[in-house]
Amino acid sequence: MSGNTFGKLFTVTTFGESHGPALGAIVDGCPPGIPLSEADLQRDLDRRRPGTSRHTTQRREPDQVRILSGVFEGVTTGTAIGLMIENTDQRSKDYSKIKDQFRPAHADYTYHHKYGRRDYRGGGRSSARETAMRVAAGAIAKAYLSAQGISVRGYMSQLGPLTMEFKDWASVEDNAFFCPDPERVPELEAYMDQLRRDQDSVGAKITVVAEGVPAGLGEPVFDRLDAELAHGLMSINAVKGVEIGDGFAAVAQRGSEHRDEMTPEGFLSNHAGGVLGGISSGQTIIAHLALKPTSSVTLPGRSIDIHGNPVEVVTKGRHDPCVGIRATPIAEAMMALTLIDHLMRHRAQNLDVSVDTPQLR
Amino acid sequence: MSGNTFGKLFTVTTFGESHGPALGAIVDGCPPGIPLSEADLQRDLDRRRPGTSRHTTQRREPDQVRILSGVFEGVTTGTAIGLMIENTDQRSKDYSKIKDQFRPAHADYTYHHKYGRRDYRGGGRSSARETAMRVAAGAIAKAYLSAQGISVRGYMSQLGPLTMEFKDWASVEDNAFFCPDPERVPELEAYMDQLRRDQDSVGAKITVVAEGVPAGLGEPVFDRLDAELAHGLMSINAVKGVEIGDGFAAVAQRGSEHRDEMTPEGFLSNHAGGVLGGISSGQTIIAHLALKPTSSVTLPGRSIDIHGNPVEVVTKGRHDPCVGIRATPIAEAMMALTLIDHLMRHRAQNLDVSVDTPQLR
Amino acid sequence: MSGNTFGKLFTVTTFGESHGPALGAIVDGCPPGIPLSEADLQRDLDRRRPGTSRHTTQRREPDQVRILSGVFEGVTTGTAIGLMIENTDQRSKDYSKIKDQFRPAHADYTYHHKYGRRDYRGGGRSSARETAMRVAAGAIAKAYLSAQGISVRGYMSQLGPLTMEFKDWASVEDNAFFCPDPERVPELEAYMDQLRRDQDSVGAKITVVAEGVPAGLGEPVFDRLDAELAHGLMSINAVKGVEIGDGFAAVAQRGSEHRDEMTPEGFLSNHAGGVLGGISSGQTIIAHLALKPTSSVTLPGRSIDIHGNPVEVVTKGRHDPCVGIRATPIAEAMMALTLIDHLMRHRAQNLDVSVDTPQLR
Amino acid sequence: MSGNTFGKLFTVTTFGESHGPALGAIVDGCPPGIPLSEADLQRDLDRRRPGTSRHTTQRREPDQVRILSGVFEGVTTGTAIGLMIENTDQRSKDYSKIKDQFRPAHADYTYHHKYGRRDYRGGGRSSARETAMRVAAGAIAKAYLSAQGISVRGYMSQLGPLTMEFKDWASVEDNAFFCPDPERVPELEAYMDQLRRDQDSVGAKITVVAEGVPAGLGEPVFDRLDAELAHGLMSINAVKGVEIGDGFAAVAQRGSEHRDEMTPEGFLSNHAGGVLGGISSGQTIIAHLALKPTSSVTLPGRSIDIHGNPVEVVTKGRHDPCVGIRATPIAEAMMALTLIDHLMRHRAQNLDVSVDTPQLR
Repeated sequence: MSGNTFGKLFTVTTFGESHGPALGAIVDGCPPGIPLSEADLQRDLDRRRPGTSRHTTQRREPDQVRILSGVFEGVTTGTAIGLMIENTDQRSKDYSKIKDQFRPAHADYTYHHKYGRRDYRGGGRSSARETAMRVAAGAIAKAYLSAQGISVRGYMSQLGPLTMEFKDWASVEDNAFFCPDPERVPELEAYMDQLRRDQDSVGAKITVVAEGVPAGLGEPVFDRLDAELAHGLMSINAVKGVEIGDGFAAVAQRGSEHRDEMTPEGFLSNHAGGVLGGISSGQTIIAHLALKPTSSVTLPGRSIDIHGNPVEVVTKGRHDPCVGIRATPIAEAMMALTLIDHLMRHRAQNLDVSVDTPQLR
Repeated sequence: MSGNTFGKLFTVTTFGESHGPALGAIVDGCPPGIPLSEADLQRDLDRRRPGTSRHTTQRREPDQVRILSGVFEGVTTGTAIGLMIENTDQRSKDYSKIKDQFRPAHADYTYHHKYGRRDYRGGGRSSARETAMRVAAGAIAKAYLSAQGISVRGYMSQLGPLTMEFKDWASVEDNAFFCPDPERVPELEAYMDQLRRDQDSVGAKITVVAEGVPAGLGEPVFDRLDAELAHGLMSINAVKGVEIGDGFAAVAQRGSEHRDEMTPEGFLSNHAGGVLGGISSGQTIIAHLALKPTSSVTLPGRSIDIHGNPVEVVTKGRHDPCVGIRATPIAEAMMALTLIDHLMRHRAQNLDVSVDTPQLR
Repeated sequence: MSGNTFGKLFTVTTFGESHGPALGAIVDGCPPGIPLSEADLQRDLDRRRPGTSRHTTQRREPDQVRILSGVFEGVTTGTAIGLMIENTDQRSKDYSKIKDQFRPAHADYTYHHKYGRRDYRGGGRSSARETAMRVAAGAIAKAYLSAQGISVRGYMSQLGPLTMEFKDWASVEDNAFFCPDPERVPELEAYMDQLRRDQDSVGAKITVVAEGVPAGLGEPVFDRLDAELAHGLMSINAVKGVEIGDGFAAVAQRGSEHRDEMTPEGFLSNHAGGVLGGISSGQTIIAHLALKPTSSVTLPGRSIDIHGNPVEVVTKGRHDPCVGIRATPIAEAMMALTLIDHLMRHRAQNLDVSVDTPQLR
Repeated sequence: MSGNTFGKLFTVTTFGESHGPALGAIVDGCPPGIPLSEADLQRDLDRRRPGTSRHTTQRREPDQVRILSGVFEGVTTGTAIGLMIENTDQRSKDYSKIKDQFRPAHADYTYHHKYGRRDYRGGGRSSARETAMRVAAGAIAKAYLSAQGISVRGYMSQLGPLTMEFKDWASVEDNAFFCPDPERVPELEAYMDQLRRDQDSVGAKITVVAEGVPAGLGEPVFDRLDAELAHGLMSINAVKGVEIGDGFAAVAQRGSEHRDEMTPEGFLSNHAGGVLGGISSGQTIIAHLALKPTSSVTLPGRSIDIHGNPVEVVTKGRHDPCVGIRATPIAEAMMALTLIDHLMRHRAQNLDVSVDTPQLR
């Protein structure tokens, strides 16, 4: 209720500050009987892990996750799953300067006003380091969804001004950017190298898709599948926009163009992004999210201190010049967590439903 | 939990089908002591009401709301507020044809697969008629927020291909489109008239803003203010995208450009749209939403029936050629409901917080 | 969240004051496909209805329930079910005296302190009249449970000092007290007649049982089946105690006596009341609840007014001399609502579980 | 939602099995600015700790709690508080026998049917070892309540057939039983010694009281203060009954006797146990809970194995002959968690309420 929980039936509650002793999560409501090991979670954690290329923060964190409960003899038991990652590279630098200043476009100012205090070391709770636990929890959801024939995958569709076309999934995992087109990777690298020389940062757009989702998931009217997806994706650090299917392009479309016609062989298009009336249609679910540029840049910026005096802030430290680069596994996690929760809610209410009507794709 | 409730402390639960006897809602958690009458709710209901211009559906509904509980001697008592609007113009036409067919891009197909059956009269529960109760509940939230110095207002910022600049709030209420620029209204009317002749529909973009919101609202990490706003706005019928502040434009921005610098006199820009780290900053909160074109067009479309056979569907009836035209009061309602809920959550946890740091705008 | 909702997946939210225009409820999450009519709800409403014998309040309310949504062509659709009962006999008497006084042992004083005001007509929201909607919603739950082979029934096991043994279910419905032993009814009638002559009131104990509940319902550790049953039963007006199985008698029992041994033919006893470790065991679920004597007695009592001055209060009006007499259908409703919710939660998480171990009774 | 979370605004989510690597909890929604150290939690943990007298289990667990987040520079920050206790004495004995058998009156049988599998080592998740985290979380709640002038304390009021009168709080902490009458302690010790010789176990009754609670806490109609207290207390392992105030004794009381009259000097009695209409009255809140005898006794008992075959079970291991002996701190924790949650809910909705009427005690 106080914000650190996602989901209603498959719930994930997280804790942990950027420079505290550990990050952790409790995954509650996981179905029993799923084979699960720490290695299953580590795979996605490694995809999100910092320091794996020169284009991300140089903080070195192994992000080794431990499963503390809820798994017995290699299988989930249905009880709460406790997860923990110890912080190992929370460099004990001097924070005395940043302590009383608000970095522009960071959460420093708003946390201070909300709580009256804040853990100022590396952003404390507002750091994107928190998303490691989302990825770990999301991997559990993915494991279950996968057994149901549902895959959740993402890629970077835009880096600053550079837009990328989707080519194939194999390429996505072959480069540091989750770029779906291998031919564009050198261009992205050159762009990032220049950006670093400019001491600046840039935004990104991520696309995440789910295939194999059965028709029927989503709870109208407020908890539509797309509404909860938007909730989950917008809750990721730095996200400023979410689209389902054609998104904002739908504004200028006509009804005769936007509507996805159906034939016995399937849908003829997918402008809707796989959701109609807030319920999955059986088509591929498609969402896009916009991430703003990292606010931590070494170019000086105007701000105030906690006494209201003007200050000039230069954000040093180890930062991602584009937070979007590591955002793909996080977006996948939020999509997977949303889907498993809706799958469970759907079953709870509609277990006995069966229709003769064939399901289209 | 099953989807018909919005909010955690100021909760709105709605019921009602397009052609059933009535729509209703229960507003729970409303603070006591707020002067409230049916007329206070009617004002916004009339702004959303169908049939007030030739550009919206010709269904005639007075949308007279009744308060059935929770208000005593003209003042809220703190107990649950029951609301009801009786449907009066649910024309008893012949639905036998539509009964077994799925209109393309409607929720017919997905409701059928989810629930195994559906009230097919006028879309049943999936009809945007449901949003009347959101507007009524939102008016209660607005009444409270207004007493706290918080205003929530919206306007249409794009109609199909036509984009509008904000000029002034008075103009917004002076035309059938909630257009913020009076000089553009004749152009919008001409566009809509042509659209009707084309028997087609079109999308729209709505912008909704909240002024006077104090710094500190929002519950990281999952229930950030922007994440719950996205949830609420995406839950409105036909919405396919949500942006906070610069939204998708932030992708191509650099950090030095996007960050909103602060001086003792206030913020120097508002790219963030009033939310930093998921918490309100005290600046104006700005959100945009994309609505798809109405799927009910009289141009024939390909579809299937419940037996899987191909059919050609022509959607007759009384429909809005642009659902976005009446969406502004609905978007305001969802923004107001999100804000009052976060105001209450913030108080619950952070009542004792006080800081000396001045609050910027 | 603000208290007027029960359940997590099959949720019931109620509104309505004793002397307002109407009572209402929204039942959300009801499985689709259940045959349902207003008559199905009316049956239990009539069992709870006032004025049917000389031993209950003489207020005349037909308690005619209307279904406003969520049922189409005689079958639930899976969408929110709106229910309403209009108040017809809210006698317009003069409340000017009671307005500023707190009746001892009523909620007047606490509502006043909580909300700063209250609807003082007939107790307003704190009146047991609210429980009519619980009974209506419970009847929906019962209809579903019944189709699953689960029955929920209750009886009065104690009236003031008189304790009754269970004889048979048919007898329970044959008298005004829900007394399970027909031979005791004359004694109960005589007791109540004397009580009325004494102008006093008395407490009662109700026993409610569920048969046919499968093993496996309940969500440890906090949302155990017995814990949520206790929540639901204690939320009924005037309830001061709840027991599962042997309840307080278990304090003086030894482990070798209390434990219910198992054989392949079944359990050998049921001290546990059908719940082990918070999860149903497949045995009959048994709960007892204690209701305090009605506080509305015509014997004068000392109290204060809203200014803190001493007053002597005599509660006139039409009151039940023993609120427990009409409490049986309410207790059944809360048991049924708890069970259906847990049935749905269980399915959501444990759908794929199957064990070879036989289920005992 | 899946059962491992308590509270709506001040939420506690726990994980951990009896013989797993660790127990843990996340406390979310804690107000910022509360001085808090591990020692503050350790005090109550030590009161609940096993192995401190010969009358409890001889398992040796230091129960050293670590705070992993949410506290910075000795003060709560308002972000999620991660807690962990490592299990150190999970003796690696041979569980091969118990693995396929259901101990009578334990949760073995029900966990097996619910989840299809279970961690059988020491009861796994169903072990009362889980309550250590409740006590740790409750200590945080107590710290906050204490600063508001609210105390929560408990004592043992009955051990098997022996009932104890409350004498003074100092005595409660002076013996291994939380007995409130020092003169009775030798008798309790003799009783327990005989019980151990009998190889049997016995139940207990705990009384828990809260003083200094302001009038106004509780959310009618379903989330009454007493209803949620009942929920919390009944969720403790082995609890079979809960009473508020006079509880089941109220059944035989008359209204003229039960009602607590008021004078300007205060209430004249407290039969209600401090709750009227589900809302705190300002009087001392009094609850009683019944704990069943431990099911783990070394006297052989009949049962079945997972194949349905009859078996004779002898429960060896280190067990409490009366689980009630260590239950007092747990009951206090659940009372404290219930109260802080309601305090926060009350503020959220009723912050602006003020009445001139004096508050009685």
